[in-house]
Amino acid sequence: MVMDQVDFINGKTRVYGIVGDPIEQVRSPEMVTWEMHKRHHNAVLIPMHIARDEFDSVMPDIMRMRNLDGLIFTIPFKAKAIALARSLGPQATQIGAINALKKHSNGEWSGEIFDGMGCVEAFKRRGIPIQGKRLQLIGLGGAGSAICVALAYEKPKLMRLFDINPQTTQRLAKMVNTISPETVVEVGLPHAEGIDILLNASPVGMLSDSRLPLDIEKLRKELVVFDAIVMPENTPLLTLAQNCGCEVVRGREMMLGQISKIVDYFFTS
Amino acid sequence: MVMDQVDFINGKTRVYGIVGDPIEQVRSPEMVTWEMHKRHHNAVLIPMHIARDEFDSVMPDIMRMRNLDGLIFTIPFKAKAIALARSLGPQATQIGAINALKKHSNGEWSGEIFDGMGCVEAFKRRGIPIQGKRLQLIGLGGAGSAICVALAYEKPKLMRLFDINPQTTQRLAKMVNTISPETVVEVGLPHAEGIDILLNASPVGMLSDSRLPLDIEKLRKELVVFDAIVMPENTPLLTLAQNCGCEVVRGREMMLGQISKIVDYFFTS
Repeated sequence: MVMDQVDFINGKTRVYGIVGDPIEQVRSPEMVTWEMHKRHHNAVLIPMHIARDEFDSVMPDIMRMRNLDGLIFTIPFKAKAIALARSLGPQATQIGAINALKKHSNGEWSGEIFDGMGCVEAFKRRGIPIQGKRLQLIGLGGAGSAICVALAYEKPKLMRLFDINPQTTQRLAKMVNTISPETVVEVGLPHAEGIDILLNASPVGMLSDSRLPLDIEKLRKELVVFDAIVMPENTPLLTLAQNCGCEVVRGREMMLGQISKIVDYFFTS
Repeated sequence: MVMDQVDFINGKTRVYGIVGDPIEQVRSPEMVTWEMHKRHHNAVLIPMHIARDEFDSVMPDIMRMRNLDGLIFTIPFKAKAIALARSLGPQATQIGAINALKKHSNGEWSGEIFDGMGCVEAFKRRGIPIQGKRLQLIGLGGAGSAICVALAYEKPKLMRLFDINPQTTQRLAKMVNTISPETVVEVGLPHAEGIDILLNASPVGMLSDSRLPLDIEKLRKELVVFDAIVMPENTPLLTLAQNCGCEVVRGREMMLGQISKIVDYFFTS
């Protein structure tokens, strides 16, 4: 029997999917499936390529597959996917977007966004607390706003926020205030004075972009520096931080933290 | 990288499914995926549990998943699935049912039935020709009618057919005549005289059923005996045949033959 079958899928396997357009670049199938297997779940996460203009009509029927238990959404569906959720987790409610949907035993689907929780989880795994700390966060777009909200739930002492769109910055500043009234919120050009942790969630430094996301030449070695960018692994900011002796937390750690939190979500009721 | 990912699925993996209700008992996910991997295709076949009363509404949307390239249908969808095919292969046209659908590069879906081809393939792999031989086929239901048609395409010398429903027998007799006018077709109670190959496609002998599908106590040792039943592996008919020194061909060999023919179909344009 062993000679003519694979050991990772069978009739009882529960199915999960990542929905995007395009789909070939996604990493969740191999990474989330690995995380599920590590936890001994008979489950697989498959790539699901749905065309942009067919998402609204096709998704409700795909969700009727009885052995489909969860979905992850990537570009360009993070904002649209929220319409598929019957109920929302706290961070999705704040941000108005989801990146994961799970089916409950009664057949209803609920949604949550995990980008921010992935960042917080990366810090936890390093043993670096956020609570009571002073943070500078740069970039409040899709991932950045989720990171901002997730950090606020950790009740830092200070959050200094910057985005190139001042309205976005104001909106997120209010949100932090609602989530964590005791956190001091500042807005304005980013700098590294008077903070403990510097976080970049802007695209500055991505791929072959050699710029830093803030105007600085040196960092205090006590600073912890995080960059949400996955490619390259060592962004210009992280290279500077390492040269200055700072502890760095990488985008890949956030990705792994996010995968872990999503699998927690999928398999707890 | 290798430490936090599986190696059998990624963003480029092409998706296939087996559709049924219930679904947990199916063997295609592990066996068809194995066959595809053996041939070095980046592809996986997942179980798809679709409720009976939702099949018609849900399937067309599931088939809009851009990286879904093929489907297999099992109980209770073999007859219904034909409506999803834009065009049909020759055996599906004869029988009016399909068990596999594939998507062509232009996005159109065509269907074919492979139960019979799987049986013929099992004989080919054993080096036992059908052409010019005299056959007794018992049982002309779902699998039996497909086996009957596939055998007819091999141009045997004689086909003696039996089904408990005489109208079914007459209908298949005509079909054999159309496909292979040179084959002599006989109908009536099954027996083992004047034949080279005895084939059972009836459910008699399945699971704990200890009956033989024909009234016989001994078989000539020159006879080749086939049973489509998979459980048990040794049916009462095959046990008798082995005791009489006959060569036997098993249901599992037909299943493996069918999987091979379906994967051929999926990956040839």
